[in-house]
Amino acid sequence: MPLAAVSGDVVIRRLCVIGVGLIGGSLARDLRRAGVVEEVVGASRNRANLERAVELGVVDRFDTDPARAVAGADMVVLAVPLGAIGPVLGHIRPALAPGAVVTDVGSAKRCVIEAAREALGEVPSWLVPGHPIAGTENSGVEASFEGLFAGRRVLLTPIDGTDREATARVRAMWEVTRAEVLEMDPDHHDEVLAATSHLPHMLAYTLVDVLGSMEERVEIFRFAAGGFRDFTRIASSDPQMWHDICLANRDALVASLERFNDELAAATEAIRRGDGPWVKALFTRAKGLRDRYTESNGREGGGHVGQ
Amino acid sequence: MPLAAVSGDVVIRRLCVIGVGLIGGSLARDLRRAGVVEEVVGASRNRANLERAVELGVVDRFDTDPARAVAGADMVVLAVPLGAIGPVLGHIRPALAPGAVVTDVGSAKRCVIEAAREALGEVPSWLVPGHPIAGTENSGVEASFEGLFAGRRVLLTPIDGTDREATARVRAMWEVTRAEVLEMDPDHHDEVLAATSHLPHMLAYTLVDVLGSMEERVEIFRFAAGGFRDFTRIASSDPQMWHDICLANRDALVASLERFNDELAAATEAIRRGDGPWVKALFTRAKGLRDRYTESNGREGGGHVGQ
Repeated sequence: MPLAAVSGDVVIRRLCVIGVGLIGGSLARDLRRAGVVEEVVGASRNRANLERAVELGVVDRFDTDPARAVAGADMVVLAVPLGAIGPVLGHIRPALAPGAVVTDVGSAKRCVIEAAREALGEVPSWLVPGHPIAGTENSGVEASFEGLFAGRRVLLTPIDGTDREATARVRAMWEVTRAEVLEMDPDHHDEVLAATSHLPHMLAYTLVDVLGSMEERVEIFRFAAGGFRDFTRIASSDPQMWHDICLANRDALVASLERFNDELAAATEAIRRGDGPWVKALFTRAKGLRDRYTESNGREGGGHVGQ
Repeated sequence: MPLAAVSGDVVIRRLCVIGVGLIGGSLARDLRRAGVVEEVVGASRNRANLERAVELGVVDRFDTDPARAVAGADMVVLAVPLGAIGPVLGHIRPALAPGAVVTDVGSAKRCVIEAAREALGEVPSWLVPGHPIAGTENSGVEASFEGLFAGRRVLLTPIDGTDREATARVRAMWEVTRAEVLEMDPDHHDEVLAATSHLPHMLAYTLVDVLGSMEERVEIFRFAAGGFRDFTRIASSDPQMWHDICLANRDALVASLERFNDELAAATEAIRRGDGPWVKALFTRAKGLRDRYTESNGREGGGHVGQ
């Protein structure tokens, strides 16, 4: 089944991807393969990366100036770090074609809406905030591949003023990748993602750093087994990107961290006093939840890292 | 190359495995396949599991009474939960053949030495505490397989009074499985494993439980991506076993938890005050450590869970 059949005959005449990395590159690959896009223009500050994107057939051409790159595009995807979304929006706005739809792929959504308001003086109706929950710990266009989003979820967080047709076009685009596209309130999105993604990243980074500060660190890393490797895989993710995400979603993340800190302190106290029933009850509840969750979410593993 | 060639012609006339689960079963499978054991006798409280072990060819015969099972064995492997080691040692001691060597596979080692002292009035010279750092989140003889220990590490923690010949025999046995066998001080073992294994398990169990207690839990588990799945895989491990491990290694685990709690509190504070440089420095250090560690430890993933 050609990918396009999934969502009818969505056609993007000119797609502009600003930030041609893992996410932007993989999206472009899927849309090209499905034959639903006529031309893909890449933009970023990194010329070498853009040249590589042309070589790999991910984009047709590129411009290092995003404002020139968006000219004539009917769909613009901002696949840049969260901290860059406001500045990029301000820069490209005067160059956008009439009727162009802009979406982003940022891992926090309230901050994107606020960044737009700050950069543009309003949240434009043609901006559809979005978040594909997919990725790997690798980054850059070299890491992009067809099928990254298949079976994954894409959350769109339009607000009251968002144009419904714009949202529908972004949805149709993502459905081509065989992602499941859902709409969600931006604040709710941020709370859920803080818990399932941003908090685990904080824990993994912190754990690795704590172990690295211990005297026995050489042996610690030497004797760590596969479980540790799985547990800390997300600590190999890009520090700049996660810095942006964690600060952009600060309020929800701090709330999650506080809940976690409270329960971990209680667990530490239970271990200290040798409270077997407390500890076993915790472990049993958690295993039950995880096993149920894993069952309802299909296959294990696969190395994909949600962002 | 036949496995036996790895360690010369180690021959165990009668191996008794008490607790024929993932670890005990996998060890028996490797030794049988290598042809270095003449007879394998299984013991446990679970008759159905033992019958299955015979069907699977993991053991030749079994006895539900460990004291009867060890009769005539020259090598006894205690693959029981940590909490059972003392009682089992007390029960089998009168039945042990002269010259028999006993080892265990527990994930903490000081507590094994203390359990032996308490059960037997002394730490016998024929007891060689050991810990294969290998496993999966599954348990039971059905989950056992040949090759589980290949390329993994087995830590032996003999003390001053341990018979050197006994240690050498246990080492030779494990080398047949193609594990790398190392000796380590028991307290040092417990500190290193608290950091790399017991602490991560506490974090994973706690995280899943915290998320399960949140109002949005249905959506939280629904929108969790592969990174979350990897991160929490170890929370699917057996609660009773991990209860035993965490309480048995209480002192070292509490020390690790306190270090982690302190750094996580500092990280939470940095996020709260929006301290970008602090956060980025943490993430950058951690990624650097993990990438270096992963490189020096070979391949990624594989689903093995260290215990």
